Amino acid sequence: MTIETHARKRLEMIIEQPHLPQFIRLFEQQDVRGYTVLDSKSGKGSRGFWSPARLSSVDDRVMIVAVADEETIQRVLSELQALFEQLPGVAFVSDVQVIRPDRF
Amino acid sequence: MTIETHARKRLEMIIEQPHLPQFIRLFEQQDVRGYTVLDSKSGKGSRGFWSPARLSSVDDRVMIVAVADEETIQRVLSELQALFEQLPGVAFVSDVQVIRPDRF
Amino acid sequence: MTIETHARKRLEMIIEQPHLPQFIRLFEQQDVRGYTVLDSKSGKGSRGFWSPARLSSVDDRVMIVAVADEETIQRVLSELQALFEQLPGVAFVSDVQVIRPDRF
Repeated sequence: MTIETHARKRLEMIIEQPHLPQFIRLFEQQDVRGYTVLDSKSGKGSRGFWSPARLSSVDDRVMIVAVADEETIQRVLSELQALFEQLPGVAFVSDVQVIRPDRF
Repeated sequence: MTIETHARKRLEMIIEQPHLPQFIRLFEQQDVRGYTVLDSKSGKGSRGFWSPARLSSVDDRVMIVAVADEETIQRVLSELQALFEQLPGVAFVSDVQVIRPDRF
Repeated sequence: MTIETHARKRLEMIIEQPHLPQFIRLFEQQDVRGYTVLDSKSGKGSRGFWSPARLSSVDDRVMIVAVADEETIQRVLSELQALFEQLPGVAFVSDVQVIRPDRF
């Protein structure tokens, strides 16, 4: 028996912790119904290596994972293009399958 | 030279921390051989915004990532459909490639 | 309006915390320009169940997420095949889309 699944998009972002409210506001405005924020430990980006142990909490990074339908993610990406002109961060989009399509 | 890779499925779930044992048991029963549990910091789901800073530890969420062959993930999804009738949570499945197929 | 996106590869690894420098060195050598390290909470791998609460910090696991072009990820996978002969860990590769191709 094969379980029926439904195509959605998974958006993953790495951003700086102090800017989280601006990205959450964007999600709210574009009707992203669910997301999860994860702390990161260290990493490297376009501005070099970073680690909470070395730098101030201003430089802490978080990962945000959100899943939504393609149209919603397209709108979010459109807004992210503008937001990333002002704020550092990266965004990756991939295909996922969900079992409860009414949720996303 | 192109590295040979092998197709597997990646299952990502966001669930409430106190229910973790039930999901791990499901993995054991369905022969999921490896998984990783990550703490989350905050997020939003069908029951609204949550954050460990605001709510009791009962509301802490964790992310579980597991990779297995498609047949195994299909069995897990089938069981998850029933488990998600009782417990809150979301599940996303995506395609991944692995270099050591004997492990998954 | 559809946002233009560009195909890249997402590499996700679960490794033991004390070996992180060796994997970061591999990234540096292969010109991986960005990555993020996340702490894990517990999990199960080929050597059984592990959890920082139960075991020494030597057994702590981290997740590393890196995004790069396919050629770079192929070189990393080639080196990982050798490194995984000596060090425990797993690696998963998936397709992602990015909006700023100059970054990856």
